[in-house]
Amino acid sequence: MSKLLIANRGEIAVRVIRAARDLGIATVQVYSDADKDSRAVQMADETINIGPPQAAKSYLDIEAILKAARDTGADAIHPGYGFLSENAGFADAVADAGLIFVGPSGDTIRLMGDKAAARAEAKKANVPTVPGSDGVIGDMQEAAKLADEIGYPVMIKAAAGGGGRGIRIADSAEEFLSLAPQASSEAKAAFGDGGIYIEKVIERARHIEVQVLGDGEDVVHFHERECSLQRRRQKVWEEAPSSALNENVRDKLCASAVALAKSVNYKGAGTIEYLYDDETGDFYFIEMNTRIQVEHPVTEMICGFDLVAEMIAIAGGAKLRVSQDDVAAKGHAIEVRLNAEDPANNFMPFPGVVGELLAPDGPGVRFDHMLYPGYAVPPFYDSLLGKLIVWAEDRDKALLRLKRALGELQVDGLATTKPLFEALLESEDLRAGKVHTRWLEPWLENNLNRIKQKEGSNS
Amino acid sequence: MSKLLIANRGEIAVRVIRAARDLGIATVQVYSDADKDSRAVQMADETINIGPPQAAKSYLDIEAILKAARDTGADAIHPGYGFLSENAGFADAVADAGLIFVGPSGDTIRLMGDKAAARAEAKKANVPTVPGSDGVIGDMQEAAKLADEIGYPVMIKAAAGGGGRGIRIADSAEEFLSLAPQASSEAKAAFGDGGIYIEKVIERARHIEVQVLGDGEDVVHFHERECSLQRRRQKVWEEAPSSALNENVRDKLCASAVALAKSVNYKGAGTIEYLYDDETGDFYFIEMNTRIQVEHPVTEMICGFDLVAEMIAIAGGAKLRVSQDDVAAKGHAIEVRLNAEDPANNFMPFPGVVGELLAPDGPGVRFDHMLYPGYAVPPFYDSLLGKLIVWAEDRDKALLRLKRALGELQVDGLATTKPLFEALLESEDLRAGKVHTRWLEPWLENNLNRIKQKEGSNS
Repeated sequence: MSKLLIANRGEIAVRVIRAARDLGIATVQVYSDADKDSRAVQMADETINIGPPQAAKSYLDIEAILKAARDTGADAIHPGYGFLSENAGFADAVADAGLIFVGPSGDTIRLMGDKAAARAEAKKANVPTVPGSDGVIGDMQEAAKLADEIGYPVMIKAAAGGGGRGIRIADSAEEFLSLAPQASSEAKAAFGDGGIYIEKVIERARHIEVQVLGDGEDVVHFHERECSLQRRRQKVWEEAPSSALNENVRDKLCASAVALAKSVNYKGAGTIEYLYDDETGDFYFIEMNTRIQVEHPVTEMICGFDLVAEMIAIAGGAKLRVSQDDVAAKGHAIEVRLNAEDPANNFMPFPGVVGELLAPDGPGVRFDHMLYPGYAVPPFYDSLLGKLIVWAEDRDKALLRLKRALGELQVDGLATTKPLFEALLESEDLRAGKVHTRWLEPWLENNLNRIKQKEGSNS
Repeated sequence: MSKLLIANRGEIAVRVIRAARDLGIATVQVYSDADKDSRAVQMADETINIGPPQAAKSYLDIEAILKAARDTGADAIHPGYGFLSENAGFADAVADAGLIFVGPSGDTIRLMGDKAAARAEAKKANVPTVPGSDGVIGDMQEAAKLADEIGYPVMIKAAAGGGGRGIRIADSAEEFLSLAPQASSEAKAAFGDGGIYIEKVIERARHIEVQVLGDGEDVVHFHERECSLQRRRQKVWEEAPSSALNENVRDKLCASAVALAKSVNYKGAGTIEYLYDDETGDFYFIEMNTRIQVEHPVTEMICGFDLVAEMIAIAGGAKLRVSQDDVAAKGHAIEVRLNAEDPANNFMPFPGVVGELLAPDGPGVRFDHMLYPGYAVPPFYDSLLGKLIVWAEDRDKALLRLKRALGELQVDGLATTKPLFEALLESEDLRAGKVHTRWLEPWLENNLNRIKQKEGSNS
């Protein structure tokens, strides 16, 4: 691989450029009209416009991206996360064009992207799954019967969905019969596929996921992350390791992730996501993300490997350069997502122009972001500005370091989620690690004044 | 310890504030009139003016600093490096005032600060020393006779000196007789002590040092750093580990450092400095620094401990929280010193106002600095603005990452040493690790155009 095109934008484009540069590989950054002044565009070796601001006509336009690769002589494409990163047709088209796709094959993406098929694959690999329908539901009456058996509440999921989109929760048979057809028709509109399946709702579950890296033959895991702090099913705060697991459960969880990835001859970086039931110690496979994730840095901080560089090396033909014995986890890392949103105002998006910018630094602090003073954050894309990641020898020290680093961070001109994290650091439950996936939303309702107060002291 | 006063300025003051904050300890930043707008002053919990810009009347004024501690209710003082950090009288005065000095006792500083006494202490602990006078030289004729025996060139050192100050090299007996009295009278003027001693010059030596941490009983080492790239005996580029040592020599070197520190019941963070002869594999103790060093972050990056936090904890009464078995070195780290100097113009100091500032970031990058946009760098103190530190899995990867991080670093408004490091990265010798303490100066003479060219492409 000699020239890598980054088919993405924002902080992940910056991240991929850095990894390529660390490997001595030249970079091509594609950009929409809205992103011509982006930091990634400023950093890349070459840049090329691929269309108007609307993602459908630029970052999601497969032909425009392949043309950009041809025009610049790039021999590889990194899809980042979101956009085309889990689009099997894109992976196929890249391969058909004789280029390297930095990720698994189209077939693997297709298999694991079909949630019902992925669930079947997990069962085959003896990975526990949430009680639910084995595959896509055909008949709604039969589905309602199964839901009765599983017990309410049940979750109705779009087979082609992801990232929390297209999910409904039914608390009763009556609700189920009204929500399920609605979910199916919405999934058809959003993803072109109306297939749905159902799963038992684990009432007080933690979201725990395992980072894996495969070269098509071998698979290595990089321990787990916990991402239980979610708002509207979007992660806002991630940690590694999880403070909920004992060594026995941790070993079983990581081994099951390796078994599943091996069973599909996984190639590239991927994440196996689980729900973990604190009370019973049981864990259940929910889905696999066949791409690099937003929260990968917490794993990098505890394991000391550059996962993006490793996935690029593997795509370039290298075998795994890391053996499982090399991957020791050390200390504790926390990532918080800095979004251009006003947490005191229902997380209203807040695009604008960056004024003064002071980045936190010092030992154990990393700030992966897309900002520079004077940068106008465009309103067309998701609101993630960057991620603040801290590492320390243990979780208590990491919490103190996060507080310190947030105090140093100054982003003028925008409302950001910084006050949310300052407020969260005062929560006894969070400090004690007593959280689950439905913890954050009621906390937000009960702590609006605390967030407002933090926002006030920042402005 | 509840409130720590930082008796220093610049990037090390920022560093100490961060460590204190990570420990949950309040901070008091003293400042001279020239530093009222410094980043450390902006970051600290409390600040207090201690006098005019001249260091003798502020940062070196023991009474002013003790008064500041009394006035603010601080119960501990961190001296940083330079200024009063190795002043035994200051350590005594702090203790006499009933306050905690973050460092060893005045007696230990006095012992190891007397270069001849330190050398005797090393011999007692079976640590090899450079052939030379055992103690301060009294009679010049007798000294010349010893110099003849050792063989020229010999180094004439001020017993009370440090940081490369007050050193002369004599290539012949004639030169020795003219330089030695001169060195003595200069040392008397500069340090109030005319004592000198002599040492054999190791012609092609590497500077290798071992980081230790002691609690008064136990001592742990944190492996070695190599600091062979020096200009006028000032370090400009540091690495950990040294690429010159095999495991056998490394083990012996680190064990000797622990033995010496234990023999003086060392308490706090310290560094044992050695010369290492590539060709023979011999190493020789040169001196001990009884304080935290500028280059401590490379050790933190490979070992994963916060040395400043550990030294504060020990000063606060804790026992060593780290056992030798906990201290594994992983990967490779490089630090470069960003000075406000023009490397293409004989390293002329270049104070000024910081314009746009872009900090490098991403995996394995740390930037410890004192800058912010609009900050006027005062002309009264040393020119160190900050340190860029990179870590990667091995040295080759760290060199690539350093290149990438330097590319991201932008400090407008000042001339800095950044172009020097960009030029150095092109040196085959440096890339191969084939350097010694006298390597950099001739390289600078031969590569002025290369540095100028890098400077041009930055502006």
